[in-house]
Amino acid sequence: MSTLFSKPLSVLNLGVGTFADAIRQGGGEAVHIEWAPPANGDRATGIALAGIVNHPRVEAANAKAVERLLAAQPRLEGIGIAREALPGMGRRMILHAGPPIEWSRMCGPMKGAILGAVLFEGWAANSKKAQALAASGEIDFAPCHHHSAVGPMAGIISPSMPVWVVKNATHGNRSYSNLNEGLGKVLRFGANGAEVIDRLKWMQQTLAPTLQAGLDRLGEIELKPLMAQALHMGDEVHNRNAAATSLLIKRLVPALMRSGAPPADVAAVIEFMAANDHFFLNISMAACKSMLDAAHGVPGSSLVSVMARNGVDFGIRVSGLGKRWFSTPAPVVNGLYFAGYSMADAAPDLGDSAITETAGLGGFAMAAAPAIVKFVGGSAQDALANTLSMTHITLRRNGAFTLPALDFAGTPCGIDARRVVDTGILPVINTGIAHKAPGVGQIGAGVTHAPLGCFTQAVSALARSINPLARSINPRARAVED
Amino acid sequence: MSTLFSKPLSVLNLGVGTFADAIRQGGGEAVHIEWAPPANGDRATGIALAGIVNHPRVEAANAKAVERLLAAQPRLEGIGIAREALPGMGRRMILHAGPPIEWSRMCGPMKGAILGAVLFEGWAANSKKAQALAASGEIDFAPCHHHSAVGPMAGIISPSMPVWVVKNATHGNRSYSNLNEGLGKVLRFGANGAEVIDRLKWMQQTLAPTLQAGLDRLGEIELKPLMAQALHMGDEVHNRNAAATSLLIKRLVPALMRSGAPPADVAAVIEFMAANDHFFLNISMAACKSMLDAAHGVPGSSLVSVMARNGVDFGIRVSGLGKRWFSTPAPVVNGLYFAGYSMADAAPDLGDSAITETAGLGGFAMAAAPAIVKFVGGSAQDALANTLSMTHITLRRNGAFTLPALDFAGTPCGIDARRVVDTGILPVINTGIAHKAPGVGQIGAGVTHAPLGCFTQAVSALARSINPLARSINPRARAVED
Repeated sequence: MSTLFSKPLSVLNLGVGTFADAIRQGGGEAVHIEWAPPANGDRATGIALAGIVNHPRVEAANAKAVERLLAAQPRLEGIGIAREALPGMGRRMILHAGPPIEWSRMCGPMKGAILGAVLFEGWAANSKKAQALAASGEIDFAPCHHHSAVGPMAGIISPSMPVWVVKNATHGNRSYSNLNEGLGKVLRFGANGAEVIDRLKWMQQTLAPTLQAGLDRLGEIELKPLMAQALHMGDEVHNRNAAATSLLIKRLVPALMRSGAPPADVAAVIEFMAANDHFFLNISMAACKSMLDAAHGVPGSSLVSVMARNGVDFGIRVSGLGKRWFSTPAPVVNGLYFAGYSMADAAPDLGDSAITETAGLGGFAMAAAPAIVKFVGGSAQDALANTLSMTHITLRRNGAFTLPALDFAGTPCGIDARRVVDTGILPVINTGIAHKAPGVGQIGAGVTHAPLGCFTQAVSALARSINPLARSINPRARAVED
Repeated sequence: MSTLFSKPLSVLNLGVGTFADAIRQGGGEAVHIEWAPPANGDRATGIALAGIVNHPRVEAANAKAVERLLAAQPRLEGIGIAREALPGMGRRMILHAGPPIEWSRMCGPMKGAILGAVLFEGWAANSKKAQALAASGEIDFAPCHHHSAVGPMAGIISPSMPVWVVKNATHGNRSYSNLNEGLGKVLRFGANGAEVIDRLKWMQQTLAPTLQAGLDRLGEIELKPLMAQALHMGDEVHNRNAAATSLLIKRLVPALMRSGAPPADVAAVIEFMAANDHFFLNISMAACKSMLDAAHGVPGSSLVSVMARNGVDFGIRVSGLGKRWFSTPAPVVNGLYFAGYSMADAAPDLGDSAITETAGLGGFAMAAAPAIVKFVGGSAQDALANTLSMTHITLRRNGAFTLPALDFAGTPCGIDARRVVDTGILPVINTGIAHKAPGVGQIGAGVTHAPLGCFTQAVSALARSINPLARSINPRARAVED
């Protein structure tokens, strides 16, 4: 020991940074290496993870799942009515964002949006009666994801609403989303006044049939090339859809004009789309959903096929674990708040739009969209760093979605729940922030992360399914069957 | 000496790299520093430059000129007919790209385009008669730049052609450009067959009046915000105009639909615009021209107000040097050639579109458009490096045009001819490459540089104007009065 301390110390410090600080304060030199044990040191999860890392069955299942994700070819097929188009949609059913949740636990914006949907459907004459009906148990509430659908923010889809229909031409599955209402007082943030209901009626009676007439004329739109082009034009197709919306308009307009639809309707529809740079978002989400549904259901796969938030819980689904949700409380987003608002005003993370990140877009493709940092915060370097860090938790690069700023590398794609738990690197999500009260609307935006708890539960569940003898390892995992 | 050579040598080598190589081959160490004397060591130019570097009159003039460049507010005012709109446009006049040039010296694409314009105007019944007329001296040929106009590639504007009219609202000057025909067999690459003339007629008789009807309804379009938004969407508004074209369409379409123009015409016009991602280029050029014309004519200023090529000569104009052109032979572009073509097939650099670089866009704003490297060659890092290197030869950053990838720094703007000569850093230009034979069309694209000779001439001329006693220093400078 005396020999050791007679020389100047050169210390490599692993994990807890304060040891290195102490050595430096004492005049020594220390190189600190960031490291944390898997699953933040949770022993049971660590054992579960060890049982499925490099497991041949999981590796083969993931290869198959991610191959299906990459091979999917979403096409915009047309517009349907939810009650006719969505599989299993009941006549007194309202779909919402995120994992399952009962009325009493729902957040303010979701409750407000549901009351709006009840009024829109004509199930109640006023807001008070709508409230009583919603609380009565006579309406079935279910996640959009249980019906091959996705919706941004509150994500409300009721039976009479028009929905985008996206077909994955490779595997034949279809996905759905509602139509984007624009900004301001809108249902998805929980507003439900007369202007909101009137707009929803106009979308049902004019927007949807006019767009359908245009699509009838144009035929299906291949969505992957359009989204790929938008990535080369500064979108990440989650919180920036300015280019994708413009490209869609450019494709649709000549067809709309030759569709035979009334010219005044065509003009109003184009103005509506042109005034809303987020118009493409819901199509992007449905496209991502169709790709991920194709990758879902491969036994043994740890590929994450859903990340979704209902404003109370954050839930994920995993390809090899069927219909189960793995949920933990949704975080409040520490983002850029509009003037006059702060985290104290925010609903916890909300919406199905994290389906874009699940598919390797949005925050995962931020390197394509440096201008978005003005909206979600950070610098252009942060945008690059977010994309690069996601390569550590994904299975592949998606050659269909290339990133010019990274010399046309593909977007990191196919989240492996094992790698999230192993590295502690959490999936990054670009998100809007809703006020916690219904109808106030968007009060900010930011970069947030999926909570680790969902992934540790999923890893434990997968380990039990792969190694049944280990079933008793982690009894704390909470799984919800739909 | 013996003391010096008894120690290991540590050499700093400046300028000629082969000295350092020799030392390294002998086992020594040498650090090489890139350096070249100003004006490549031309003594007379070096003396001229020394006379105007940090000269208070030049500094003050440049401050004024670049302030005018930055303050300009180009607005798309409408569409005119060249013979009515362009100042000084004669009834038997044809305008062309670049500095002045007589018929016999013109390159193939320019001759082909002029024959097409003669046919379009009905001045000759066939190509042979058009050729005789063009060579007869009965047609006045003049640079677009002599009439406040700009045109891409051959840049041909004849009296009956429609032109974009851009007004700089700050200073009141107007600029003009022809309308973009699309790709393939087009006049600007020298094609002049029936399909080309028919398209020009349609543009004159349908496209122009329909667009004018839309603009009448919409009012003027502020071009700087639109171009700034396009820079955030991956355009550099020279060789990438996909976003700007989409944004223009989005603005125009509702107005076109409510304009009262025949619906079939409106549909055809929108389809024409939507099929050509370069449609906005000519508007971008006219906008840049209007900004630079505002900065032109400040006595003593070394700000470059024009860079233009006619396929034979590359010429520049300088704010403080009036109507004079400073020209040298145009280079052949060493770019990315389409399959089957090489530099041997190319016309030398051609077109007025380098007005975008002169205004701090195009190659100067390449950091905004990493995807363009697939078209012009290089990597995303090269795109960033091109923008950064242009900061060394420009007077200011343009806060109206910000670059997300550089954390929203402004584009380098206002080329100082002195700094080009002093540093040897040549203005970078993103350009298309025309086949040397008329009508073959585009055969490639690439990144090229303005030749030094134009700038050394301009510096010598400015030095003579500032220090008249030095008039005899450099008799070799060649200047052409228009």
